[in-house]
Amino acid sequence: MSQDSVESRIIVKVRESSRTETEDWVVVEEPLEIRAGDESLVVIMRTPGHDLDLAAGFALTEGVVRSPDQIGTLRQCRSGEGGPLNVVEIGLAPGVVLDRDRLRRNLMASAACGLCGKASLDALAFQARPATSRIEVSRDLVASLPARLLGSQEAFGRTGALHASALFDSRGTLRVCREDVGRHNAVDKVIGRSILDRLPLDDTLLLVSGRTSFEILQKAAVAGIPIVCAISGPTTLAIETARAFNITLVNFLRGHGMNIASCPERIV
Amino acid sequence: MSQDSVESRIIVKVRESSRTETEDWVVVEEPLEIRAGDESLVVIMRTPGHDLDLAAGFALTEGVVRSPDQIGTLRQCRSGEGGPLNVVEIGLAPGVVLDRDRLRRNLMASAACGLCGKASLDALAFQARPATSRIEVSRDLVASLPARLLGSQEAFGRTGALHASALFDSRGTLRVCREDVGRHNAVDKVIGRSILDRLPLDDTLLLVSGRTSFEILQKAAVAGIPIVCAISGPTTLAIETARAFNITLVNFLRGHGMNIASCPERIV
Repeated sequence: MSQDSVESRIIVKVRESSRTETEDWVVVEEPLEIRAGDESLVVIMRTPGHDLDLAAGFALTEGVVRSPDQIGTLRQCRSGEGGPLNVVEIGLAPGVVLDRDRLRRNLMASAACGLCGKASLDALAFQARPATSRIEVSRDLVASLPARLLGSQEAFGRTGALHASALFDSRGTLRVCREDVGRHNAVDKVIGRSILDRLPLDDTLLLVSGRTSFEILQKAAVAGIPIVCAISGPTTLAIETARAFNITLVNFLRGHGMNIASCPERIV
Repeated sequence: MSQDSVESRIIVKVRESSRTETEDWVVVEEPLEIRAGDESLVVIMRTPGHDLDLAAGFALTEGVVRSPDQIGTLRQCRSGEGGPLNVVEIGLAPGVVLDRDRLRRNLMASAACGLCGKASLDALAFQARPATSRIEVSRDLVASLPARLLGSQEAFGRTGALHASALFDSRGTLRVCREDVGRHNAVDKVIGRSILDRLPLDDTLLLVSGRTSFEILQKAAVAGIPIVCAISGPTTLAIETARAFNITLVNFLRGHGMNIASCPERIV
């Protein structure tokens, strides 16, 4: 975590027989605007720190660019004089043009063929292909991931309000871990860091601290991550997405137990 | 919960010394499109059930309408032939015109005065006024809310992937409880149900099962809810918002303990 991720605030702590004013650590939440090609794409609430990772990951997983090499430059700047560094400008690589229509296509495609989970999957097929990775990992390795993540989560213990996301290689080595007030942001940050480092994602395991909903699986599918693990439960659409894109989905990772909802053959 | 909120799926359950295929309950996630005045406002991923509550709450807390009585009709329909009921059309009351500019003003206001937490608060001041409610509740009553919520949370225990939100009156009586895969949706559903029932919100306590970020406090501020309680932690911007809009913010509600980050005078 960067130094800007956590701040202290004075709060009133009420316990069984006391009521005291005290200082407590609180996770920082601030808006970040992501721009590309002179256009404002989005304003998201995020925890400051690793903002370039976040912008790069967002650009890939939300379809702003089709591949990591379409990102030419990343520049963090202020929105106004003296303000915080709450803007990231994505410079597209030479020859790449921002396809505004494509950014809206997911929604259009869904609306055109009837709005439902199936249509969301069909729309995602414009962006992602089923994972072909033959990675295999042991269940003991998978079971050990939460403890490995916990060891590198600095801020969570202090604030109780952060989501964590981590990428591990097939040996269980932690490659990158990021925390954010937003679940999706934490995933975008680890994916963004990896693509900026030009590391392949088709031999990695993604671990998220919370639940797995459609958008988490959508991001994994676009990034080409073959195994997604979570401490909590999945949604129906997350399972459908995992199955459609050949992603191994592991939930309720607690102790030695886990539930595998999709592609269990990768856990041996 | 409606019957559509939970479905069963076949998963592989891995335990210490077994690996079995079994049926498990999974929370449903499906897209919902909200329309107003012939315009598509948004497509959100939500858990089906209480969709009219969700649309009404969203319309108020996201500034589509300025007051509940600007909502004339609510109609749930299919986006395509034979598809699921994944569209809600909001009919505006006679004389009310959808103010497209206002819907974009929050972002514009933020961008104009420098994008930061302070600007987000300034933008919110267009929609909400500080709570003037003189409601007072005992700490014992506040401490008892999580147990009262848990008793009415049907689906969570079965799926482990739902957020719950509940409104209580000043005596601690549960008025409405809603669950959803999205934290914000659960809050919009309880607010929407209350405004559709024309029940005042200025004497209520909102309890959320997770954390409190800016958007939860934003929705409470717009709806005029004076006390927000949560099981987990707050963000810096949630605290700032609570203080700016005179909302009592209670976090880490566990056992008899709690942390009060704003307006502690309402907890006696």
